[in-house]
Amino acid sequence: MQIYKNNSLHLYNTTSGKKELFSPISDGNVGMYVCGPTVYSNVHLGNVRTFMSFDVIYRYLLHLGYNVRYVRNITDAGHLTDDGDVENDRFVKQSKLEKLEPMEIVQKYTVDFHKVLQEFNFLEPTIEPTATGHIIEQIELTQKMIADGFAYESNGSVYFNVLEYNKKGMNYGELSNRNVEELFANTRDLDGQSEKKNPQDFALWKNASPAHIMRWNSPWGAGFPGWHLECTAMSTKYLGENFDIHGGGMDLKFPHHECEIAQAKASFGHSPVNYWMHTNMLTMNGLRMSKSTGNYVLPMELIGGNNPFFEKSFSANVIRFCFLQAHYRSVLDISNDAMVAAEKGFNRLMEGIALLDKLVASSTSTLSIQNWKEQCYKAMNDDFNTPILIANLFEGVKYINLVNDKKETLTVDDIAILKETLNAFVFDVLGIKNVKSSSNNTDKLTGVVEMLITMRDEARANKNWALSDEIRDKLAATGVILKDGKDGTSFSI
Amino acid sequence: MQIYKNNSLHLYNTTSGKKELFSPISDGNVGMYVCGPTVYSNVHLGNVRTFMSFDVIYRYLLHLGYNVRYVRNITDAGHLTDDGDVENDRFVKQSKLEKLEPMEIVQKYTVDFHKVLQEFNFLEPTIEPTATGHIIEQIELTQKMIADGFAYESNGSVYFNVLEYNKKGMNYGELSNRNVEELFANTRDLDGQSEKKNPQDFALWKNASPAHIMRWNSPWGAGFPGWHLECTAMSTKYLGENFDIHGGGMDLKFPHHECEIAQAKASFGHSPVNYWMHTNMLTMNGLRMSKSTGNYVLPMELIGGNNPFFEKSFSANVIRFCFLQAHYRSVLDISNDAMVAAEKGFNRLMEGIALLDKLVASSTSTLSIQNWKEQCYKAMNDDFNTPILIANLFEGVKYINLVNDKKETLTVDDIAILKETLNAFVFDVLGIKNVKSSSNNTDKLTGVVEMLITMRDEARANKNWALSDEIRDKLAATGVILKDGKDGTSFSI
Repeated sequence: MQIYKNNSLHLYNTTSGKKELFSPISDGNVGMYVCGPTVYSNVHLGNVRTFMSFDVIYRYLLHLGYNVRYVRNITDAGHLTDDGDVENDRFVKQSKLEKLEPMEIVQKYTVDFHKVLQEFNFLEPTIEPTATGHIIEQIELTQKMIADGFAYESNGSVYFNVLEYNKKGMNYGELSNRNVEELFANTRDLDGQSEKKNPQDFALWKNASPAHIMRWNSPWGAGFPGWHLECTAMSTKYLGENFDIHGGGMDLKFPHHECEIAQAKASFGHSPVNYWMHTNMLTMNGLRMSKSTGNYVLPMELIGGNNPFFEKSFSANVIRFCFLQAHYRSVLDISNDAMVAAEKGFNRLMEGIALLDKLVASSTSTLSIQNWKEQCYKAMNDDFNTPILIANLFEGVKYINLVNDKKETLTVDDIAILKETLNAFVFDVLGIKNVKSSSNNTDKLTGVVEMLITMRDEARANKNWALSDEIRDKLAATGVILKDGKDGTSFSI
Repeated sequence: MQIYKNNSLHLYNTTSGKKELFSPISDGNVGMYVCGPTVYSNVHLGNVRTFMSFDVIYRYLLHLGYNVRYVRNITDAGHLTDDGDVENDRFVKQSKLEKLEPMEIVQKYTVDFHKVLQEFNFLEPTIEPTATGHIIEQIELTQKMIADGFAYESNGSVYFNVLEYNKKGMNYGELSNRNVEELFANTRDLDGQSEKKNPQDFALWKNASPAHIMRWNSPWGAGFPGWHLECTAMSTKYLGENFDIHGGGMDLKFPHHECEIAQAKASFGHSPVNYWMHTNMLTMNGLRMSKSTGNYVLPMELIGGNNPFFEKSFSANVIRFCFLQAHYRSVLDISNDAMVAAEKGFNRLMEGIALLDKLVASSTSTLSIQNWKEQCYKAMNDDFNTPILIANLFEGVKYINLVNDKKETLTVDDIAILKETLNAFVFDVLGIKNVKSSSNNTDKLTGVVEMLITMRDEARANKNWALSDEIRDKLAATGVILKDGKDGTSFSI
């Protein structure tokens, strides 16, 4: 269903600094590129947050009925920590530490990345290109930029000429609103800087020292591509020279995305991207997460509970729910209290959804479900405002409880809309994993527990209170909580 | 532990047609390359069998203490169904059907492939390179072969000159023992054959028609690599010009592996591979599996039970166990009866392992565990003979039952060896997933069932037979089977 026709989606465009009406280049189709991970270490929880934000954006675009080509790359080469220092290529560094080939490092952490994202129930992007898979395209773009006077070769490396770019009427710094003259005023004279005409220039191609393992032949000798160029090569190859949405963490705004704009304008003569979207940071206990300070937890450590910051383990669903309670452009601070609170909220939401099937319909509705549904869409149409959406979902749970307690009434049709809308937003859009519909042993566990509830009901009917209590207490000891209500006993695992 | 020092591993080398002592090029290190899937459709069960065979080979090499670099590629470009027909590139064909970009097809089926292998508890290879990630290397090998007179350009395509190769003293057909003159005697005159000097010649690079989407610029114009070349480029890049083991399905022996040998000899002047290993076919109900005949089931359909050939679903563990009951060089025929029998055997094995913890040690052993252990290694050292190994593992289960029934005795040390060896071969080498040590809900299910067994024991002690039977029957109805034995009640799920 092309429900995007009845929804006017607005999103915040970093370029204009404003929320803008979303209008894709090709009606009904969306091209979206998101800068993926550099696979030289385990994926950081902050990255998970960024990718989760775009997962929800992707999911909502799909929900609206758009045909989305979602490209998220894997950076498996050429991510320099410093343009001037060839030996700083992150893969080469790590491979020396672990005595692995660079591509073994790449494989190890690509697998880790995919496992973590799978754990959090991410949708796969439609294309997941790698930097090493696009060396030819990067060489060709570099050749074109040299030919057009935007780049120059120096000692087997090629640099983008930022001042020349600006002289030709363009504006390096347009995205981050920086002044190019001031940008590098305080730049230290790093090794390799002498190759550059100006310190602002950035590498498109780097000459590889003999010790550098990751290397390809090029018109300028053996080398490897600069980090910024890969995203220009891959995004335009699969989405066209001008596409709709480009996303990433806000730390990529400068210099990475600024360089992408410059490369694309130099190569194609126009801006590559209509909407630039940036996610904000993730902090823990109010502080920046960082390995060096020790204020750091890996995604799987957070799920597993084996970390010093959280009192218990949390399911991937609860963590996802917690993350999405912050808007993607706000700082997200996680803490034990925040996670415990999110877990309570999450359980309340799931209990509400479970109650849906038991609601008894009336001939009239005393609540406006249509209005509630519109509020849900309004939240997401307003720059993907997940916290407001979640507040609305809880409003839906309140309705369920009121109807269940016979304090309000809903018609069959309204119950159906409530159910459909809640399921769509919770499972399809927010990406909560519907545990009920998965895994075999969960079904069996549910079956066995339901059988125990029946046994307990029989025991209570026979006034065998000892057995009834025994069942309840022993189940609690294994982590299954029974809850007696007016309409029988429910349980949570 | 470098236990490979005490094991003389023999493997069947297709080149010699004999079992040979395995002696790696670099002591303690093994380089192994296996031809991976062409990701233009769902992975075939026959492919799963091939990759599972090499998964077990990889696992056993690791178990022996070798440091293994295991490279399994992804063929995401250039797999031609016919050299002569440019439009037959499988990705372009499929993309037209599904209206997807070729790289969307690649992503869709790469994800499917990884999910299926994960389901079957495969170890990840250490490097998983893609054909599109190695276009430069393929172009460079092609340039070298042209320069050395082994290949020629024709209409923007490049062909390997088989007759010239043989004239230079080499022998195209050495692996499959084919006579090159006879090979193509009956070749039909296909479109594009006119470009070739001889019908035996095969493509290293193909000129792309304007309609061909997957294309890269090359010294011969826009085109795409021939299928055979990618494996030569990737295997030698990551394992060296001469490496230990190259594996694949027997259908790849000719022409694919034959071409790989020719390409490597032409490029490097010597044979690339010391041990060629080929797996045999998988059939179903005695017939070749094939989509067109309808005698076909997808891996996930076999697991899920939604297929017309099997009466029920089977766990990935049972399917793996069934597959490994055939030697990798024998035809493996699957059927409902075979799978049901495998499931019975699998359960018997698991029950035996579960009993291990309950065995009571004696001061002397009446069984020779050391001899039994040696037989296990002997089976695997004899060309990875998993069916013989599995027979030995059942011998181990027999020992467990005999000791449990007090008919034989074992010392503490022998019980420890039995346990360690069984666990190592079942879980590490055969790759059976140890369900006990995984997933949360399985643990909870186990906890709840154990609690029910305790309740039932109490009921029986109180002669409350009605409750005791009720617990047993209701559990059975949810798929949990209780089994009363001398030493209490066990259960299977």
